[in-house]
Amino acid sequence: MPCRSSEELDGLVREAKKVTKHGKVANYIPALQKGNRDDLSVAIYHADGTCLSAGDIEQKITLQSISKVLSLALALMDCGEECVFNKVGYEPTGDPFNSIIKLETNHSRKPLNPMINAGALAVTHLIKGVNVEERLERLISFIRDLAGHNVITYSLEVAQSEFETAFLNRSLCYYMKQDGIIDEDVEDLLDLYTKQCAIEMDCLDLARIGLVFAMNGFDPVREKQIIPVEVARLCKTFMVTCGMYNASGEFAIRVGIPAKSGVSGGIMGAVRNRFGIGIFGPALDEKGNSIGGIEFLEMLSKRYELSIF
Amino acid sequence: MPCRSSEELDGLVREAKKVTKHGKVANYIPALQKGNRDDLSVAIYHADGTCLSAGDIEQKITLQSISKVLSLALALMDCGEECVFNKVGYEPTGDPFNSIIKLETNHSRKPLNPMINAGALAVTHLIKGVNVEERLERLISFIRDLAGHNVITYSLEVAQSEFETAFLNRSLCYYMKQDGIIDEDVEDLLDLYTKQCAIEMDCLDLARIGLVFAMNGFDPVREKQIIPVEVARLCKTFMVTCGMYNASGEFAIRVGIPAKSGVSGGIMGAVRNRFGIGIFGPALDEKGNSIGGIEFLEMLSKRYELSIF
Amino acid sequence: MPCRSSEELDGLVREAKKVTKHGKVANYIPALQKGNRDDLSVAIYHADGTCLSAGDIEQKITLQSISKVLSLALALMDCGEECVFNKVGYEPTGDPFNSIIKLETNHSRKPLNPMINAGALAVTHLIKGVNVEERLERLISFIRDLAGHNVITYSLEVAQSEFETAFLNRSLCYYMKQDGIIDEDVEDLLDLYTKQCAIEMDCLDLARIGLVFAMNGFDPVREKQIIPVEVARLCKTFMVTCGMYNASGEFAIRVGIPAKSGVSGGIMGAVRNRFGIGIFGPALDEKGNSIGGIEFLEMLSKRYELSIF
Amino acid sequence: MPCRSSEELDGLVREAKKVTKHGKVANYIPALQKGNRDDLSVAIYHADGTCLSAGDIEQKITLQSISKVLSLALALMDCGEECVFNKVGYEPTGDPFNSIIKLETNHSRKPLNPMINAGALAVTHLIKGVNVEERLERLISFIRDLAGHNVITYSLEVAQSEFETAFLNRSLCYYMKQDGIIDEDVEDLLDLYTKQCAIEMDCLDLARIGLVFAMNGFDPVREKQIIPVEVARLCKTFMVTCGMYNASGEFAIRVGIPAKSGVSGGIMGAVRNRFGIGIFGPALDEKGNSIGGIEFLEMLSKRYELSIF
Repeated sequence: MPCRSSEELDGLVREAKKVTKHGKVANYIPALQKGNRDDLSVAIYHADGTCLSAGDIEQKITLQSISKVLSLALALMDCGEECVFNKVGYEPTGDPFNSIIKLETNHSRKPLNPMINAGALAVTHLIKGVNVEERLERLISFIRDLAGHNVITYSLEVAQSEFETAFLNRSLCYYMKQDGIIDEDVEDLLDLYTKQCAIEMDCLDLARIGLVFAMNGFDPVREKQIIPVEVARLCKTFMVTCGMYNASGEFAIRVGIPAKSGVSGGIMGAVRNRFGIGIFGPALDEKGNSIGGIEFLEMLSKRYELSIF
Repeated sequence: MPCRSSEELDGLVREAKKVTKHGKVANYIPALQKGNRDDLSVAIYHADGTCLSAGDIEQKITLQSISKVLSLALALMDCGEECVFNKVGYEPTGDPFNSIIKLETNHSRKPLNPMINAGALAVTHLIKGVNVEERLERLISFIRDLAGHNVITYSLEVAQSEFETAFLNRSLCYYMKQDGIIDEDVEDLLDLYTKQCAIEMDCLDLARIGLVFAMNGFDPVREKQIIPVEVARLCKTFMVTCGMYNASGEFAIRVGIPAKSGVSGGIMGAVRNRFGIGIFGPALDEKGNSIGGIEFLEMLSKRYELSIF
Repeated sequence: MPCRSSEELDGLVREAKKVTKHGKVANYIPALQKGNRDDLSVAIYHADGTCLSAGDIEQKITLQSISKVLSLALALMDCGEECVFNKVGYEPTGDPFNSIIKLETNHSRKPLNPMINAGALAVTHLIKGVNVEERLERLISFIRDLAGHNVITYSLEVAQSEFETAFLNRSLCYYMKQDGIIDEDVEDLLDLYTKQCAIEMDCLDLARIGLVFAMNGFDPVREKQIIPVEVARLCKTFMVTCGMYNASGEFAIRVGIPAKSGVSGGIMGAVRNRFGIGIFGPALDEKGNSIGGIEFLEMLSKRYELSIF
Repeated sequence: MPCRSSEELDGLVREAKKVTKHGKVANYIPALQKGNRDDLSVAIYHADGTCLSAGDIEQKITLQSISKVLSLALALMDCGEECVFNKVGYEPTGDPFNSIIKLETNHSRKPLNPMINAGALAVTHLIKGVNVEERLERLISFIRDLAGHNVITYSLEVAQSEFETAFLNRSLCYYMKQDGIIDEDVEDLLDLYTKQCAIEMDCLDLARIGLVFAMNGFDPVREKQIIPVEVARLCKTFMVTCGMYNASGEFAIRVGIPAKSGVSGGIMGAVRNRFGIGIFGPALDEKGNSIGGIEFLEMLSKRYELSIF
């Protein structure tokens, strides 16, 4: 295990845990419900390869919305900026992540950005491959590369559970199909998308991937550019402007670290040229972000002046 | 053929035809595109069984949105007012017939009324039967009964064509499935709905069905109450408040006759205790109503003071 | 007093009163708050000049939104249909009466119809006169003519109270001024509008005015056409499609009588060629309509088959 | 004049000017219309007190929306974070800067952020002082302090012109007054706000103020903390998430420098710990930002890797 426990992190985590009682564990699918409300674990992966942790960082969680950043990176590498932003916009939105309204009212009919569900579906649509299996395989390979090891896969149970109840995502997909934003079979796209969301990893993996973004796409451990600089920067921009659902603006002010959260309670963060952050805390606030995770990040950012602003 | 040509109607139709050049024939599916822009035909079926006509009233058209009134009548007969209005509201809307916005913003999450697409889908969902075939069979039987003859069926070509491209209706269905408004398989519902919209008849049939509504559900020809009085009245109310898409308010003012239009260029009208009206004029105005048909109805209503207001 | 008490009406009113306990008296200005929740009074004015009543029909109430129909009639007489519908649309809306959204999203920027606040303000804007005083004088004269007597005026207390807190109406006015829908001084328009809303009368007056609409603009008592037939009909159409706020669709189904309600608890109704109805019941349902008044009208309409549908 | 012309800047400006022909000079008030479409001038103020320029940097422009950042800083200093964010939210929006929709639909009724008009008005409302004159005086003093000299004032001509036609801003104010977001006299607030927007300065002033933000509130020239660190950081966060109207997301990706634009064609930018930027280029793109200014900033950011991401 390359990550050693840190007393300082332990202290911050203990402090941050005080707010978890105000949060709620997601319960829309049985698998997520199993999370323990008061859990909070953190891994911090430095550019020199050392790692600090607090809590049980080996617990596996599904990526959920965190995967939106990774599929965006791959789609940008697969087909380029122009191709991607032909399907999805750049702008943050005050609407909820699953809102359909702007698809009807927005002049361009494009989803506003790649971090809301509609936009993420349009991005996953662009991942290359001859079929769902190959596209998923390519995405998982990419993520394994980012995390630096080969045992990452997805939870079939979570994927199936989400696939069966993904009515709203189906609605978004068909609306976009009507407008020519996507043109593949909707069930295929949802199959791929729900599996993407169900990819599992632990905090250490999240931190390691965060580190690659922190280094602008470069993996300092294996000394390898995995994501082009421009793509990594672009992804981090969306993490800042839209990474925490419609609490992104407040998070930018209180924390100021590029980060992406998921409904499983995970957060991946990237502190430029310094370290990646992986957090797991299943108690969510009302906007759907890990309540303990945000509290931790705010304390960390203040103590070490990590805000990009 | 029970319907004789009328010089007076001919005159009105000739006059009304002057506006057809400002309209456009629907072209979103090949079958509709075949309509001749300058066609306009009218049948008027009186309570005494006599019928007057102008133009080629034997041309078959698909019901399209006109079917929404008929499925509403059947659903009300199948499961009652409370059951129907548990799924769909009573209120007119200023939004387009295919808008999805109110499904997200409306507090109750119900479609606003049974004449917009979302509402019509929720209504068709309630038609009883063990499977799509039986439900379609029951609807067609009901419509045959209303029209007074047994040769009415649907156009497989039109139904298939619409089924394949019904992405927006799929989007509406899945959105409603998310909210528990509908709980059946969406493809099944769309199969039934697109076949319902593709039911074919001629102007005479439309006029005959209009007559049944005009007589509050009673068929004066065969002396038989086909629709309960309350149901017929309720359907006519929706024809007035929401029957002509989002030109219903203007139509109520200019014409004031309960009527329902379809994108094929058909209109069915009902003048209380007097007669039913069937119109076919494929040139549509910008709101999607037969431009010649509306012109004709306005002249007819003014000449004979037919407005209910 | 020309109106005699009727046992039958008394019975219906007693029955209808059972629901008043579920309503609430409007309290946004002190003057309205004084209403007694369990009051319900009704006057029915027949074409032959006879009148039936139940309850205390001499209690004065302010017209509030009922005035929207009367200002519409006067504006149509002042400047014609084309001029009026250049400023305001014909279509019902599913949005609340005080919503501003459609002013921004609607392509034409016109308020959707003359019964929502924005539309009513645009209509009052069109009442002719060299200044507010003359325009108000003309409106009051018109209403006195409709009611058949000369003692109608407005409540200065209510007008002032509403004027001071009419922030939302000011917002609507300035939005429309931005779009060129209105071009007069906003404070002037609000002065006129709040006085219009504060015009006071009793149930008998309401019934008498309803009778004029019922007779398509003709006052059968003084044998005089006060409103042109076309204007009266047009007003009744809006009473049906938009007269009861966003419960108009349900009211059309359950009652089917052209009627307009106000937040003071008043309702004016018109049964074609037969009688006018005046109601006062200050307990409102959640949509802002007199809860007892609607209950009464539903019973009356069912018993005498008064629905226009 | 402390600022010397730079050949390198000249080159970038010459290159950036190529796009000005695709822009349009604002024309909603006469004073703005005078701008020359092909003008583009830039000043860059370094932390060491040196300054580089290109173009005519002594031309005076009105701040317009750039003032929103400065009034936000003063309001935060006047009444604190909690007080300010009790009136206005933190979140970016996909809606236009002058949209009113979210005031009605947003659960909290607060304007989404301080960079849209509604939010900026709510912020200016919080600037302390016994009357408009004193509040304006305090704001201007603050801005003089930021710019390091005492001759800054506002254009009475521009302020009056905007005050007279500020119907939409009046509409926003009254809507917020209805909801208790603001409670002062609307005309007073607009008087103050339009004067705030009409404050005039040149590019050099803009660059000098940008430098203070770049140094987190510290003026390195006079060695003085003018804005508390936290306030300066908070303002820069909003400049990134919402500073360029609804092109902020794209600007964050293409440029990544905290910046705020105004409809006069000005842009103020802040590169952390390095320099402030002042730009004037009156030709606007369709989103309302200086088209040449953005082009210049993109080239500058790419060449010197200035993005914060």
